[in-house]
Amino acid sequence: MVRSKVGVVVLAAERSERMRSALPPAMHTVAGIPAAQYVIEAAKDLEPENIVVVVEKADANKALKGASLVLTSGLETLPQAFAGCDSVLVLRGDVPLVDSALLSSLIEARAGEYLVSQVSTKAGEGVGPWCVDAGWFWDQVNLESGGLLESLKGSVLTKEYSVATVLATGNATLHIDTRARLAEVESVVRRQLIEGHLAAGVTFRDPATAYVERTVQIEADVCIEPNCYLYGETSVAEGSVIGPGVTLRNASIGSNCKVEHSVVEDSSVGMRATVGPFAHVREGAVIGDRCEIHNYAEVKNSVLGNGVKVHHFSYLGDAEVGEEANIGAGAVTVNFDGKDKHPTRIGARAFVGCDTMLIAPISVGEGAFTAAGAVVTRNVEPGVRVAGVPARELPGKEERAE
Amino acid sequence: MVRSKVGVVVLAAERSERMRSALPPAMHTVAGIPAAQYVIEAAKDLEPENIVVVVEKADANKALKGASLVLTSGLETLPQAFAGCDSVLVLRGDVPLVDSALLSSLIEARAGEYLVSQVSTKAGEGVGPWCVDAGWFWDQVNLESGGLLESLKGSVLTKEYSVATVLATGNATLHIDTRARLAEVESVVRRQLIEGHLAAGVTFRDPATAYVERTVQIEADVCIEPNCYLYGETSVAEGSVIGPGVTLRNASIGSNCKVEHSVVEDSSVGMRATVGPFAHVREGAVIGDRCEIHNYAEVKNSVLGNGVKVHHFSYLGDAEVGEEANIGAGAVTVNFDGKDKHPTRIGARAFVGCDTMLIAPISVGEGAFTAAGAVVTRNVEPGVRVAGVPARELPGKEERAE
Amino acid sequence: MVRSKVGVVVLAAERSERMRSALPPAMHTVAGIPAAQYVIEAAKDLEPENIVVVVEKADANKALKGASLVLTSGLETLPQAFAGCDSVLVLRGDVPLVDSALLSSLIEARAGEYLVSQVSTKAGEGVGPWCVDAGWFWDQVNLESGGLLESLKGSVLTKEYSVATVLATGNATLHIDTRARLAEVESVVRRQLIEGHLAAGVTFRDPATAYVERTVQIEADVCIEPNCYLYGETSVAEGSVIGPGVTLRNASIGSNCKVEHSVVEDSSVGMRATVGPFAHVREGAVIGDRCEIHNYAEVKNSVLGNGVKVHHFSYLGDAEVGEEANIGAGAVTVNFDGKDKHPTRIGARAFVGCDTMLIAPISVGEGAFTAAGAVVTRNVEPGVRVAGVPARELPGKEERAE
Repeated sequence: MVRSKVGVVVLAAERSERMRSALPPAMHTVAGIPAAQYVIEAAKDLEPENIVVVVEKADANKALKGASLVLTSGLETLPQAFAGCDSVLVLRGDVPLVDSALLSSLIEARAGEYLVSQVSTKAGEGVGPWCVDAGWFWDQVNLESGGLLESLKGSVLTKEYSVATVLATGNATLHIDTRARLAEVESVVRRQLIEGHLAAGVTFRDPATAYVERTVQIEADVCIEPNCYLYGETSVAEGSVIGPGVTLRNASIGSNCKVEHSVVEDSSVGMRATVGPFAHVREGAVIGDRCEIHNYAEVKNSVLGNGVKVHHFSYLGDAEVGEEANIGAGAVTVNFDGKDKHPTRIGARAFVGCDTMLIAPISVGEGAFTAAGAVVTRNVEPGVRVAGVPARELPGKEERAE
Repeated sequence: MVRSKVGVVVLAAERSERMRSALPPAMHTVAGIPAAQYVIEAAKDLEPENIVVVVEKADANKALKGASLVLTSGLETLPQAFAGCDSVLVLRGDVPLVDSALLSSLIEARAGEYLVSQVSTKAGEGVGPWCVDAGWFWDQVNLESGGLLESLKGSVLTKEYSVATVLATGNATLHIDTRARLAEVESVVRRQLIEGHLAAGVTFRDPATAYVERTVQIEADVCIEPNCYLYGETSVAEGSVIGPGVTLRNASIGSNCKVEHSVVEDSSVGMRATVGPFAHVREGAVIGDRCEIHNYAEVKNSVLGNGVKVHHFSYLGDAEVGEEANIGAGAVTVNFDGKDKHPTRIGARAFVGCDTMLIAPISVGEGAFTAAGAVVTRNVEPGVRVAGVPARELPGKEERAE
Repeated sequence: MVRSKVGVVVLAAERSERMRSALPPAMHTVAGIPAAQYVIEAAKDLEPENIVVVVEKADANKALKGASLVLTSGLETLPQAFAGCDSVLVLRGDVPLVDSALLSSLIEARAGEYLVSQVSTKAGEGVGPWCVDAGWFWDQVNLESGGLLESLKGSVLTKEYSVATVLATGNATLHIDTRARLAEVESVVRRQLIEGHLAAGVTFRDPATAYVERTVQIEADVCIEPNCYLYGETSVAEGSVIGPGVTLRNASIGSNCKVEHSVVEDSSVGMRATVGPFAHVREGAVIGDRCEIHNYAEVKNSVLGNGVKVHHFSYLGDAEVGEEANIGAGAVTVNFDGKDKHPTRIGARAFVGCDTMLIAPISVGEGAFTAAGAVVTRNVEPGVRVAGVPARELPGKEERAE
């Protein structure tokens, strides 16, 4: 077969009354990305000349990757956009599970003999995709009135022209025209993704309650316990056990970690660390190997060396913490003065006592000790012990602070 | 058809050995309300003369809404209760999915010709409902021995009288006689409720793990993420994203909020607020627009103005907080002295420092500042800065407190 | 039928490339225990002479209970191990749902007439189990090359000998050779366990999202809400409501408790206690009756008398707390000085104020009071009130502390 030059239009502005939504169906997300994005990617596999996406004005700036052109009006420019093309694929953005094999068949079915080819299902829903002869098509449709789909259906339905038909089976023509259908499509995509991870050696204790977006990477011998949400640019290295009840959003988890009943976002966690239950690792945290971030610990925009222990409720923000440091219950880096954020440095093996307030910018030296309840307003030298409000150096080197 | 005068008996005291329960099956809850309540409501749709519910003594005070009369004994008064009725519907409270259409058919089937009509299934379980001729029926049954159902079944089974039969399909005769059946009924009801919300324009990321009680109202374009529990008098306004892992119990959530891994109870949250992860909004909280109630924040019986930030572990109880105020990590309204609860007022734009203890009753003025670790025992005037244990006014207006 | 002397070999070192795992399939866990353990227990029901388990070297010390002998090599000793046996059952550890009834049929099928009996499925997978004539078998197999299974299959497949066949239906031959199959087996086991609990009178709001290991005991009229994880030696007494979102790991929960969105591990909780949301009861906690362990409360290695209230974020570690004591928000037992752990005693009805630091070892007497923000470094006598940093006795007995 001679490869024809193909252009693609993805219609992402169509409406469905039954969705009862302010958003067109094609812009609803499925496993974290807009439905139309799936269609663009199926089209991309064909290496078309271009991919034009037609969206509503409100959706013009939404992240649809891989489109050559995003149109919100001015469809009359379409013939020019497709000037060099023999065939044009017309795809609905709200029929997201179309695949490139079906699109190839469609192009092939038309080749040479037909002006139009269309996909048909047993139910005969007529949701596309369609493949049309480029030269002929633009003469048929009334682009100024905006109704490309209506014109297309009109042309096809008049049947003045010979039409090739390709039968589709399975989910390829699932049309998001109700919320129930949206949930069904989400379920299909979710299951497919999980099957891929299962085949790659990931254990899912209960695949039915695992929510993994397409962008997520999971190594072999990871175990995902029930009710985990792995979103965005998340990765989990081998041997880690995630869950139950964990949200990872743009999180990088090292090997042999254990994360339970926690949320990790825009952060990385080293090897053999334990997180949770009920920990919150927020944006910009870099957690070292063997760290222990336990119940009610919050870490934000901080770098923790290896073996740091944060076992209880406490807050580390804008901090740099040396290895093996210990952060007591209720300790806080007071990083915000109501106006600006300030940094805190805590040295290796430092012991930050319970309920210690570290008034940033501040530094606590290596092996230093702050007593429970201390409000530390000045830098603490390495090895020094402080206590009180405000904190003052303790005499001697007694074993315990008061 | 001439409308006959109908009375209804709901039997909610029947036992099932296989339930292995201290409670009769009809009093077990399905999606948050007793099974018998569903039956009462199906009956109410017929606008009967009265609805008499027969319960066990221990259940006499349980909230069954819509019953004209709740009997725990004295069934011999039934004929009098139904004096004006032509027909009596006898319904089992543990067969909760009976619907009013089936009940109408049953009444109609008996009309004029038969003394009894009964529902029949393929399985022929004989769990009702039944419709009987009122005048005839009371002569047949032995109400003093308490066995209305036994008498009824005896009468019907003797077949001396002509019996009309109505065939039931689907779930209408699902009988809660085991815990497995209870779970099945719960699943059916849950699915029906979710389908209603889907049709009304609500997105459910995974309908299988959404737990929504009948009393809940959700606007269009709300997205319910997996594993959410929406109970009681809860409402969620348009554009909000709830979940994953959220319990809302009698909670009113405004539009365009984001609530994640949190519990909100007997409270309201304004528009564009963010709650969680791991926040707990308790009874009597009124959270303003754009508030940020984040990890480990607990709010109880407090009114928060617009834009208040509670980002970390802390406790606000019996407090009134002005708009744009900022509550630091570890701050606490010390509302309980071991004997009584006392109120706290925090002015607009006040900055309550980390680990500040506000010993109630107390007031912190507009734009005031409390330093980290302060124990505030006296009112703080607007714009004033305090620090220390107990807190004293800081000289000058330096940018940062110690 | 004459009972023959039976020996059992469980093969737990076989590999499956498609698992993509560092671990043999038989050592993957199903509902918390290794797959091979299920096989051992099915075999034990037959009261065999011995059970020999063949594992990889790395798995030699893993807890497989009930094995007479664990071999990692030296299969040539097998004939001696089975010296007194007529029959040998050869079982795959990665086919865990085999049951003792099937094994009995297999032994019986061979009795007297056949050298080999094998289980056959419609799919004819050939994953066993097999029963062989002991005397004959050891002559056939080449144990030095390690390939007992290969030899067996070779012998059986040559069909020089007559082979008895037993047909298996259902899940008995489900073979864990992919992660998808592992998830399927887990799902089957999970459902069976839940069915057992349902029959025993436990309510599961959603059986599909209940994760209960075999070792767990639940009394009648317990209600398990969705998304609960009951693991290890856990027990829940009658009338308690567990969930949603609860992990119990080796936890003993008394009757009529309410536990929600929390984690309880290696601990016990008395009757009518309430735990959560977001509480963490850690190892070694003994929580009394009617205790209230609420949001962000952490308790570890501590004994709490009846009626103790821990309502907010706080940490009790290595503590003994008398009945009806009240622990304020942010209070901490400072049990760790960076080197050693120390105990805290809190008397009955004591009031530990918010943000109080109890520097252990320390004791707070019956009915004593510590003010908010107090750092308590010396023992507090019964009924005494202290405040400050460090805490000093307050004069008089005023109602409120500063």
